[in-house]
Amino acid sequence: MKRILSYFILFLVFASWPLKAQENTFKVIPLGVKGGLDESNLSAYLLAPTASKNYICLDAGTVYAGIAKAISNGVFSKSPEYILKNNIKAYLISHAHLDHVSGLIINAPADSPKDIYSSQYVINVFKNNYFTWQSWANFANEGEKPQLNTYHYKVLETQKEVALKNTELYIRPFTLSHSNPYKSLAFLIRFRNSYILYLGDTGSDKIEKSDKLDRLWKAVSPLIKTKQLKAIFIEVSFPNSQSNTKLFGHLKPSLFYDEINALAKYTGIQALNNFPIIITHRKPHKNNEAIIKEELLENNKLKLNLIFPKQGELLKF
Amino acid sequence: MKRILSYFILFLVFASWPLKAQENTFKVIPLGVKGGLDESNLSAYLLAPTASKNYICLDAGTVYAGIAKAISNGVFSKSPEYILKNNIKAYLISHAHLDHVSGLIINAPADSPKDIYSSQYVINVFKNNYFTWQSWANFANEGEKPQLNTYHYKVLETQKEVALKNTELYIRPFTLSHSNPYKSLAFLIRFRNSYILYLGDTGSDKIEKSDKLDRLWKAVSPLIKTKQLKAIFIEVSFPNSQSNTKLFGHLKPSLFYDEINALAKYTGIQALNNFPIIITHRKPHKNNEAIIKEELLENNKLKLNLIFPKQGELLKF
Repeated sequence: MKRILSYFILFLVFASWPLKAQENTFKVIPLGVKGGLDESNLSAYLLAPTASKNYICLDAGTVYAGIAKAISNGVFSKSPEYILKNNIKAYLISHAHLDHVSGLIINAPADSPKDIYSSQYVINVFKNNYFTWQSWANFANEGEKPQLNTYHYKVLETQKEVALKNTELYIRPFTLSHSNPYKSLAFLIRFRNSYILYLGDTGSDKIEKSDKLDRLWKAVSPLIKTKQLKAIFIEVSFPNSQSNTKLFGHLKPSLFYDEINALAKYTGIQALNNFPIIITHRKPHKNNEAIIKEELLENNKLKLNLIFPKQGELLKF
Repeated sequence: MKRILSYFILFLVFASWPLKAQENTFKVIPLGVKGGLDESNLSAYLLAPTASKNYICLDAGTVYAGIAKAISNGVFSKSPEYILKNNIKAYLISHAHLDHVSGLIINAPADSPKDIYSSQYVINVFKNNYFTWQSWANFANEGEKPQLNTYHYKVLETQKEVALKNTELYIRPFTLSHSNPYKSLAFLIRFRNSYILYLGDTGSDKIEKSDKLDRLWKAVSPLIKTKQLKAIFIEVSFPNSQSNTKLFGHLKPSLFYDEINALAKYTGIQALNNFPIIITHRKPHKNNEAIIKEELLENNKLKLNLIFPKQGELLKF
C-alpha cells in the first residue's frame, strides 16, 4: 500500500511537471530599469516568447550597456553588437523623452534594419528632433534627407492590434496621460492567447484629470480574470513624500495603489492575489529607490507579486 | 667632506621638490571615453586646476555613470548627485551629436544652475532639438517657453578667450571640421600661464578638404615649445582598415600621425618627445579599440606620450 502511494505521489509530481513548464510564456530581460540620471541603466526591456530568440525592445533608454550586463550575467553568450543586430527585431517606444530613446539613437550606427513602432506624435519627435542631421544623422526612412533607412517608422493606431514583423508577437496600444497634455503609450503584447501589459510613463487619473488608466484597466481586466494576462509593467517614479504638484506626470506608491484599487473594481480582489506587477522607472535621487520599494511593500494589501527588476537579470512570466 | 656632499645632495633633492610638484597643473577625470554605442561610457572629461574643486565638463556624453565610476575608484567621496551639482561649474560642448551631450540632458533635472558654453550653431541644436517640450523639457534660459533656467547658454566666438564663470579657467575656442560642412570645436583651456588643448570630433585636413587643424596647430605650437601646453586630447575613432570614404569626419591612426607631423613642422620634432597626447573617442566596434591602440603605439616615431584614458581614473598634467 505504501509502495502504491509512493508511485502515486511520483506520478503526481511528473504529471504536474509539464504544466509547470508551460506556465512561463514570456521571458523579459531588463536592459535598464531606472527612471533617470544614470545613463547606464535607463528604461528598456527585451521581451520574447520563452522559446524564441526574436525579442522586441520596450522603450530604449539604455541598450548596449544593458546587453553587456546581461552577457556578464550569462543571459546572452554573444557580443552586445551581435544581440543588438540579430535578436532585437523591433522597438516599441512609449514616448519620446530622451531617457526612453537615447540608447536606440546612440546605437543606431551599429544596428540592423528594423521597425520603430509608436504613435504619430512620438514618431514626429524622432523626425524633427533626434534623427536630424544637426543633432545626429537620419537613420530612419522619413524626415530630413539623406535618409539612411536603418529604421522604418510604423505608426500605431490606438487600441488597434498589429503583428510585429519578424516576431511571433502582436501589440495593441493604449494612450496614457504623462503630464497632461503630453501623451505616452501602454502596449498590450500578445503571444498566441497570452498577454503582457507594459505601461510607459504615466500619471494617475486623479492627478492628470484623465480617464486613460481607467479605460486601460477596464480593457485588460477580462484577461486578468481568465489568467491570460501574465504580468503588468508599471512605473512608480517618486516616493510618497513627493508633492502632488511636482509629479510631472508620474506615479508614487499611494497613487499606484489608487490605480490598483481601480483595476480591482473590474477584476475583483481575488484575481490580483499574487499577480506579477513589475515596478519600473524608480528615479535614483538620494535614497528614493529603496524608499519607493519599502512604501510599496508595506502597503501591499491585495498581496500583489511586486517585482523590482534588475538590469540584465532574466524574468519569466 | 662626505657630510658636506650629503647635505648638498639633500639640498638638491629638496630644491627640486617644489619644481616637481609644480609640474602637475591640471587634473582630469574622464567620465566617459568611448566614441559611441556604450551609453555608460561616452565622451566627457572633468578638468580643474590641481588644487581646485571647480571642474569644467568637456563634452557630456556620460555624466552620472562616469561620476559613479570615479567614486568607486576613490577619486570622489560624495554622491554622484552632489558632485554633479557642486563640482561641475560649467559645460563646454564641442558639438551637438548625442554621444557628446546625452549625459547633460539626462541629468538636467538633478543639476544646479550653470552655463553651457559652445558655438551658436551647437546652442541652436540644444534650443531646437533637445531642450524642447516634445523631446524633454526646456532646462535652459532660451528657446521654447516655459524656460526652466537651470542652464544659461554662452555663445563662444572663435579664437576669443573668455573666463569661465565660477572657475579659475579661461577658454579660447577653435573651429574643427567634422564631416564638412558640420562643425565641431576645440578648446584651448588656460589656468594662469598653463594650457590644455581639448579637441572635439574632427576629421583630418586632407580628408575634410579643410585647413582647420593646420590653423590650430599653428596657433598652439608656440605653447608647446615653451612647455606651457601640458597635453592634447584628440580623437582617433577608427582603425586604419576604415576606408577614407567612411570616416564620417573622424580620424584613424594613419591620419592622426599625418596631423601630428603637420604639428611637428611648427614645433620641431624634439618638442613633441614624450609630449602627453590623450586618445579619445575610440569606437567600440568588435575589437577596434585594441586595434587602434596597437596601430598608434606601433607607429609612434616621435615618441609621443600616448595615453589611453579610462573612465573614472584620475590623470594629471
